[in-house]
Amino acid sequence: MTRQQLIELIKERRSFLCVGLDTDLNKIPDHLKCEPDAAFLFNKAIIDATIDYAVAYKPNLAFYESMGIDGLRQLKLTMDYLHSLNKPAFTIADAKRGDIGNTSKQYAKAFLDPEGDFDFDAMTIAPYMGEDSVTPFTSYEGKWVILLALTSNKGAFDFQYRETDGERLFESVLRKSQAWGNTDNMMYVVGATKADQLAQVRTIAPRSFLLVPGIGAQGGSLEDVCRYGLIDDCGLLVNSSRGIIYASSGEDFALRAGEEAQKLQQQMAAFMGV
Amino acid sequence: MTRQQLIELIKERRSFLCVGLDTDLNKIPDHLKCEPDAAFLFNKAIIDATIDYAVAYKPNLAFYESMGIDGLRQLKLTMDYLHSLNKPAFTIADAKRGDIGNTSKQYAKAFLDPEGDFDFDAMTIAPYMGEDSVTPFTSYEGKWVILLALTSNKGAFDFQYRETDGERLFESVLRKSQAWGNTDNMMYVVGATKADQLAQVRTIAPRSFLLVPGIGAQGGSLEDVCRYGLIDDCGLLVNSSRGIIYASSGEDFALRAGEEAQKLQQQMAAFMGV
Repeated sequence: MTRQQLIELIKERRSFLCVGLDTDLNKIPDHLKCEPDAAFLFNKAIIDATIDYAVAYKPNLAFYESMGIDGLRQLKLTMDYLHSLNKPAFTIADAKRGDIGNTSKQYAKAFLDPEGDFDFDAMTIAPYMGEDSVTPFTSYEGKWVILLALTSNKGAFDFQYRETDGERLFESVLRKSQAWGNTDNMMYVVGATKADQLAQVRTIAPRSFLLVPGIGAQGGSLEDVCRYGLIDDCGLLVNSSRGIIYASSGEDFALRAGEEAQKLQQQMAAFMGV
Repeated sequence: MTRQQLIELIKERRSFLCVGLDTDLNKIPDHLKCEPDAAFLFNKAIIDATIDYAVAYKPNLAFYESMGIDGLRQLKLTMDYLHSLNKPAFTIADAKRGDIGNTSKQYAKAFLDPEGDFDFDAMTIAPYMGEDSVTPFTSYEGKWVILLALTSNKGAFDFQYRETDGERLFESVLRKSQAWGNTDNMMYVVGATKADQLAQVRTIAPRSFLLVPGIGAQGGSLEDVCRYGLIDDCGLLVNSSRGIIYASSGEDFALRAGEEAQKLQQQMAAFMGV
């Protein structure tokens, strides 16, 4: 999906919501747990209930890999289902990969290749190994790298704020990496729990799309994110995972997920002034 | 595998060689390409030919993920085969994962859990997200985190050498992370192409095992690695991937892989003085 298509989708749905499909078999409703393909059935119900309010879906690979090979198969079913809908959505492999160039190319093939099992629009990448670990992910037309800049966890403070010549590590990641791609194929992860840092992020990356996790369960505020992060063509994808998909652990889980997604969509529409 | 078991294995085989199973269907011999389970058959032949000279095997996940779900199935066949042998080997998932604590726990389950599909002894982890992204991998008894410190690629120079208060980023990773685990459950990746940096690594992490990639195809020298990195109970695993597994692209590939592994084993034995 191109930047222009993504912006049009955001305008059409009046939403920049990304739903995190962190599907954990221990947390899904009891009545689904014993079904074959339980993770896929759960995802399908969540997607059906939220797609009018969301523009993006972000399965975190860890949750599928922890179910072994069968988990990956259920991820494929989920992606096949998303691709089959007549309502488009931007799909993100939250994979946090990154390796030497030769190897990153294989990861890109695994998740972004239209001929592959998954055909995601984007994947998250860790920046520690530098340029040649990132650029292989920019080589697929209409596909995106989403580079970790400032994450939403406590451990973000261990290295991401280390300052060298007046520039913190996450700022260096933002600045340097802009030469490795462009605003049509590179986004950044900036945690909502650090919303006040978004103003600084916007001075370095004024036009880049930002993927913002940490709303809800992790404590980030949508209002702050919008105040510091919104640009004229939106430039934001705000993710909520647990707050939506585990809104209820009962048989009404999908209904309640839809309600939570709709609430966020309405707030987003108000912040966008549409 | 515990530290003590690993050290005993190294002494017994007079080797600290790790064979990187970066199995690429485009590079394996033609006569295997059309076989079902070609990647597994290739790996099995490589393992059989090298296990007397190597103590560890390191499949890079990217190469299996790029084959889709079927690639993961062939990785499982490879791990099942390694576990079935009466000759032990230390197994490393070269995965370079790392995510918020909650999610890293899922990755740990995916690759380290003895009940899971793979049951690796160790996995490589990227440090960018800090402590809570790393500690979930230290919670399995006898299993290891191998944290990226200084990698062997060109992009290593983008961020890993950034200096803050006289300490470079990779040094900060080495120093801080020692409080997140211990020398029985945490190793570090230090690229052989930066062998002169190993002396500095040893001042910060004198007792830690180091996994050293970049010998051979990437230009690193085994002699330099041993000069700066060897400690009295070895403390090194030196990886070679392409130099061994693609030593020949003909029907003699396994024989040639065995010869290359034996050459390295003999050099290693000499450097260890055994």
